[in-house]
Amino acid sequence: MLRYLTAGESHGPCLTMIIDGVPAGFPIQIEKINHDLWRRQQGYGRGGRMLIEKDEAQVRSGIRWGETIGAPVALGIENRDWKNWTKKMSALPEDRDDKIAVTKPRPGHADLNGALKYDRSDIRDILERASARETVARTAVGSFAKQLLAPFEIRIMGYIRSIGNVAANLSRLSFNEIYARSEESPVRTADPDAEEKMIALIEECKREGNTLGGIFEIVVLGLPPGLGSHTQWDRKLDGRLARALMSIQAMKGVEIGLGFEMARRRGSQVHDEIFFDPIKDVSEGTPRVVPTGFYRGSNN
Amino acid sequence: MLRYLTAGESHGPCLTMIIDGVPAGFPIQIEKINHDLWRRQQGYGRGGRMLIEKDEAQVRSGIRWGETIGAPVALGIENRDWKNWTKKMSALPEDRDDKIAVTKPRPGHADLNGALKYDRSDIRDILERASARETVARTAVGSFAKQLLAPFEIRIMGYIRSIGNVAANLSRLSFNEIYARSEESPVRTADPDAEEKMIALIEECKREGNTLGGIFEIVVLGLPPGLGSHTQWDRKLDGRLARALMSIQAMKGVEIGLGFEMARRRGSQVHDEIFFDPIKDVSEGTPRVVPTGFYRGSNN
Amino acid sequence: MLRYLTAGESHGPCLTMIIDGVPAGFPIQIEKINHDLWRRQQGYGRGGRMLIEKDEAQVRSGIRWGETIGAPVALGIENRDWKNWTKKMSALPEDRDDKIAVTKPRPGHADLNGALKYDRSDIRDILERASARETVARTAVGSFAKQLLAPFEIRIMGYIRSIGNVAANLSRLSFNEIYARSEESPVRTADPDAEEKMIALIEECKREGNTLGGIFEIVVLGLPPGLGSHTQWDRKLDGRLARALMSIQAMKGVEIGLGFEMARRRGSQVHDEIFFDPIKDVSEGTPRVVPTGFYRGSNN
Amino acid sequence: MLRYLTAGESHGPCLTMIIDGVPAGFPIQIEKINHDLWRRQQGYGRGGRMLIEKDEAQVRSGIRWGETIGAPVALGIENRDWKNWTKKMSALPEDRDDKIAVTKPRPGHADLNGALKYDRSDIRDILERASARETVARTAVGSFAKQLLAPFEIRIMGYIRSIGNVAANLSRLSFNEIYARSEESPVRTADPDAEEKMIALIEECKREGNTLGGIFEIVVLGLPPGLGSHTQWDRKLDGRLARALMSIQAMKGVEIGLGFEMARRRGSQVHDEIFFDPIKDVSEGTPRVVPTGFYRGSNN
Repeated sequence: MLRYLTAGESHGPCLTMIIDGVPAGFPIQIEKINHDLWRRQQGYGRGGRMLIEKDEAQVRSGIRWGETIGAPVALGIENRDWKNWTKKMSALPEDRDDKIAVTKPRPGHADLNGALKYDRSDIRDILERASARETVARTAVGSFAKQLLAPFEIRIMGYIRSIGNVAANLSRLSFNEIYARSEESPVRTADPDAEEKMIALIEECKREGNTLGGIFEIVVLGLPPGLGSHTQWDRKLDGRLARALMSIQAMKGVEIGLGFEMARRRGSQVHDEIFFDPIKDVSEGTPRVVPTGFYRGSNN
Repeated sequence: MLRYLTAGESHGPCLTMIIDGVPAGFPIQIEKINHDLWRRQQGYGRGGRMLIEKDEAQVRSGIRWGETIGAPVALGIENRDWKNWTKKMSALPEDRDDKIAVTKPRPGHADLNGALKYDRSDIRDILERASARETVARTAVGSFAKQLLAPFEIRIMGYIRSIGNVAANLSRLSFNEIYARSEESPVRTADPDAEEKMIALIEECKREGNTLGGIFEIVVLGLPPGLGSHTQWDRKLDGRLARALMSIQAMKGVEIGLGFEMARRRGSQVHDEIFFDPIKDVSEGTPRVVPTGFYRGSNN
Repeated sequence: MLRYLTAGESHGPCLTMIIDGVPAGFPIQIEKINHDLWRRQQGYGRGGRMLIEKDEAQVRSGIRWGETIGAPVALGIENRDWKNWTKKMSALPEDRDDKIAVTKPRPGHADLNGALKYDRSDIRDILERASARETVARTAVGSFAKQLLAPFEIRIMGYIRSIGNVAANLSRLSFNEIYARSEESPVRTADPDAEEKMIALIEECKREGNTLGGIFEIVVLGLPPGLGSHTQWDRKLDGRLARALMSIQAMKGVEIGLGFEMARRRGSQVHDEIFFDPIKDVSEGTPRVVPTGFYRGSNN
Repeated sequence: MLRYLTAGESHGPCLTMIIDGVPAGFPIQIEKINHDLWRRQQGYGRGGRMLIEKDEAQVRSGIRWGETIGAPVALGIENRDWKNWTKKMSALPEDRDDKIAVTKPRPGHADLNGALKYDRSDIRDILERASARETVARTAVGSFAKQLLAPFEIRIMGYIRSIGNVAANLSRLSFNEIYARSEESPVRTADPDAEEKMIALIEECKREGNTLGGIFEIVVLGLPPGLGSHTQWDRKLDGRLARALMSIQAMKGVEIGLGFEMARRRGSQVHDEIFFDPIKDVSEGTPRVVPTGFYRGSNN
């Protein structure tokens, strides 16, 4: 029912989002969206732009007196550095200046493919939209969506599992503990030893002018059974989640549950046995939205 | 390929549009969009708001140096009266003021259905989005789309056929003539006699506190054959046009070609005979984008 | 949520429909679908094919033991004349026979546009799919949808208002009466005088080798308020209905309520005044699915 | 432009597919679809059903004389075991037999979630559609799609990388070699040593009544640059591919290129450097559809 589009170039005047199909009567706090935008800007070793830009969402429609009204929600996030780009990113033909065109495509970016597809001689026409700054818009949309889910006691949490070859040891911690500790960490991990090594690794890469990848994990608690559907290929929840994640810049792998580890185990070691107890219907202390009495002994 | 969403309340800070799937390299002039917004605000007998508000589109993304770059185009149109509505339409919960709630649903509007569907006790939550001011957003999107079609020499023209019971006599005029004359008329008709009667009728209705409907006609010249498709119900061009038109506020009928008149005639009087002449491949002087040599003797 | 695709050529082996997004647990009777297919084949003056073909739907998936199970519903309707077309409509390359190609495009059909768009030299490749036999598939899908609505006491009725220049006089009859009488009429009208004239007119046109159009009216009783939405152009109910109707072969006009007549009246004569009475919440004797207490004094 | 829906239960009369938006004039051979259906049924250790069922696609529309005609393509694949299921999977209410209901949900299947979502007391209503037999339908659709791509010299190849903890060593082989050798292997691998171990592992699991997973790789050669788009989240190619793959039953991980290995490396070790040479514009001997002169030194 919900759908969204985003627009906006990295150095354009602002990012714009429209979220359509919004139910009415849900409380929305802009501060929560801004908090998630702030979270996105943290992270050890982020570039200088993160320091000059404190992103803030402006509500342009769809929220009145702190509540959704059913109308599409338009959000805007202004580019704080816009004053330095008014000519370079101007919409007006008289500002054209071919001398500043970007003509060298970078690997690891959409530069080459985009320029070929859209037939642009100035690669800036591509890189401005392909930039990871677009994830600011998705962060705002996701933060809005989290507020729609909150009344159902559905919680969404994310944290780092590894950076480069340094993996966090997260065993013996509940999801809630992992999340709480990660939120306090500059590299968003709940493992203090790994944190130290991750920071050292980032510093090392910075010195050598290199970059690093990593793996993050997302946990959702409190979901009712029956989201998605087995009935048609494009309604399957796993597929929709994989699309959403793989569409993020630089993402090259998505796993659900045990993921590829499942391929190495035998069936008896991966299936989550089903139990029934009308009382024990909880998941990590969070009461289930749709208590059914069924639960699983594992979470692969 | 193209899709668009609009957002924005009638008295909110601004209207927002995102047009996605835009091809790159098309020249776009904002003045042309603003001209169409101005056209929308003309018309004999329009309300006072039309006088205080000169709508102007702001480009927020997708157009650089006068050209589309393939990225989604976001447009914004600010509400010039916003300063008088900041509290009444505020997004913040602290501005809530239930004393000013609209509680009387009006017939001929979405007030009642919307309030029931979205469970709103203040009908303003409905009427602000259902308002015909939303057509400002569609005018801007349509004007943008016209500029995408212009390089293919496709022209879109609209004018009034009747207001209330006064119908224009447009026989013996070409489409181009009808359009040119209508653009000069305060009631956008090419028939001077009808114009006089229409104005008198509008004045009469104004005096009695009544409203009036009318019929407009849209003509598109220069289209290539083969838009839409006969192969699936939701690809048929007639259906897509009808949806676009019937989705406009207050529209209650759509006809294509002769429309309902066809139902009264016999087949021999309605079909458009097909001829072939490799030279005579023109339509009102506009060379065809895809010259095929085929033409029709009538245009029912 | 529901979506459907149809497939099948007029003289191919069968028509195929997939209806996806079907809720589970709804009783479905194939006989009702077959009854609607039979209704489609009636009508004074239909061609000879209607006599040889008694269309029957076969359930290929999604219905078990008389109930939907949530899975997509596939229906098939075989072409009873297929044995005469196996070569002409074969899928196999060895059956190609260019000597039987149709090369003369007919006006009033998709022949010319389709052949140009899909670059076919044998117009049969176009006319087979563009044929009005495709409405057999839509009749089956619609009949299925009616059964989904029936538990909510929503009734959908259709009948003829006019054929050629002969209009039925349907005043002073309730919708239920009009429908009941029309179902008994060979030209599906509730007005016996008009019936006689319509039949005479059809006979006259047959003699002169001509065809005729007409106007039908669809009435839906028992709908809850709030279908569709005012919030986005493509969610508006009027637009979606107009698309569905205008996508039917040969349809050139769609009106909702008074339709174009509204354009001729003043506002005070077209708006449906809103009343409230918690008891009088009925519509022609059909209890409302979602009783709200609101009702209208007219139905324009 | 292309879209498709599938329908059909595992033990129902047949699977049904509709592919819509098909371009006209493409040669289609049913034998090629049947060959891919046969390939799907191979594989060491497949269950007994694979032996009794030789799946064959029937063309029900959209292909004439060996060519697509632009119309939707409907395919059907009959269930060869249907005669044993006519009562158990009947569409008729009189065949209901609650005594044979499946009431025990299996882990690793949609049984429990589906039964809760669709409120079914007989889990057969869920498992019949959730069954991996649905991939027969997708195999046919995919095989059809491969034939649309073939004229552009685009080749799609798939093979096994690992089964359980046995990984194939595929280094020093070109994609074409890997594919050719894998097609000859009962476990579809190009590494003879791994093949032996995989077969032993499968036999061992069979003896202990266990199951096994594995990892397969898909290679596409000859693609033009510019499929998908960086401009909107749901147009990104990686996301669309991930959705398609993760929507297959039992898939729990998707990687593109190096995948998760990228997360462990530094940027300098993962980016694919861009070179330009107007002559060397080939990829494994396959001439590029859209020769651009650009090529990459690696393929991460």
